Amino acid sequence: MEEREISKAVIKRLPRYYRYLGEILNNGIERISSGELSGKMQVTASQIRQDLNNFGGFGQQGYGYNVKYLYDEIGKILGVNRMHSMIIIGGGNFGHALANYDFEKNGFATKAIFDIRHELAGTSIRGIPVLMMDQLEEYIERENIEIAVLTLPKSKVAEVADRLVKCGIRALWNFAHLDLDVPDDVVVENVHLVDSLMQLSYRISNYEEEL
Amino acid sequence: MEEREISKAVIKRLPRYYRYLGEILNNGIERISSGELSGKMQVTASQIRQDLNNFGGFGQQGYGYNVKYLYDEIGKILGVNRMHSMIIIGGGNFGHALANYDFEKNGFATKAIFDIRHELAGTSIRGIPVLMMDQLEEYIERENIEIAVLTLPKSKVAEVADRLVKCGIRALWNFAHLDLDVPDDVVVENVHLVDSLMQLSYRISNYEEEL
Repeated sequence: MEEREISKAVIKRLPRYYRYLGEILNNGIERISSGELSGKMQVTASQIRQDLNNFGGFGQQGYGYNVKYLYDEIGKILGVNRMHSMIIIGGGNFGHALANYDFEKNGFATKAIFDIRHELAGTSIRGIPVLMMDQLEEYIERENIEIAVLTLPKSKVAEVADRLVKCGIRALWNFAHLDLDVPDDVVVENVHLVDSLMQLSYRISNYEEEL
Repeated sequence: MEEREISKAVIKRLPRYYRYLGEILNNGIERISSGELSGKMQVTASQIRQDLNNFGGFGQQGYGYNVKYLYDEIGKILGVNRMHSMIIIGGGNFGHALANYDFEKNGFATKAIFDIRHELAGTSIRGIPVLMMDQLEEYIERENIEIAVLTLPKSKVAEVADRLVKCGIRALWNFAHLDLDVPDDVVVENVHLVDSLMQLSYRISNYEEEL
């Protein structure tokens, strides 16, 4: 599609639109104006109209947006209109917490957790089996896994990422505090918690300076 | 300081600079050129020079950057040159995982975990005590807590955020899948995991379209 040259900033806002529209839909609201959406989202109405125009503009002047239609369209753009299969590598605290997260309702099904500790073999978290790392390649191929979540110690991540890339994983959701070096056709989305904390402390410090 | 009108994009990159410089420093390297830094960080050398110029430019032509000096200066800008005190609200899997995280070495000391489950009173995680929510206000004031980490169920977050704002918390690190409405002088840094997953699936879908 020609019109899909969308800025990164707009893409970053799409999940928020999707989230808000989902809530509005749950509340049984069928139509909404950019003004009403603006009030809820703390984004200006003109920004909302501009953002949504990127996708051909689903609104009708004076009628507002059809919530269900807009929700579905944004879902398609985000690729969450189908279920993605996911595995978690690392069954530590963080991997455990993520396995307990109900990402299924957002289109992401956690199929298995991989670890190296033999005492975890045969256990499960929320019905999701814990498997051993020597089963990794065979499992990904057999179950057609798209996404691997990396919650490993920093020292192990690069090696595991290499194995995942070799067996054709499509995307890495990386929680290790390390930037990965992978081929261009593998998507890496980083969640760097320390970077996020530093943004926060920058903003605290900066606010102090303004006083 | 007059020159501190820095774009959000630059601020977002600072923690990465800080992380890389910390590693370089650990490896005993005293000076580095923007070219060498560029190779490591996968950012162009001219981008690096431009970014660092925002802070008065610490480099010397032909000599490169003094790694220790640059690291310390960026640390000051980020506000991580002093220790920040932090509490975690919610001792579930996620709060537990975060309590186990060694954020101290980055300037963030987790002092306590708050929960409502009485069976957790008196327990601790990595030496960090689990306290009950009725002690919240008194504790924050007494211990001079700056940052609260929110790992509560979505339905409870708004109410707890209100309590925290009332007792003078400076910043909220929010893991709930919800945008908070707080006064302008309270910093909110969101980690929306589902939004991050959706960015990832957008990029998978988009890549598929390009094929």
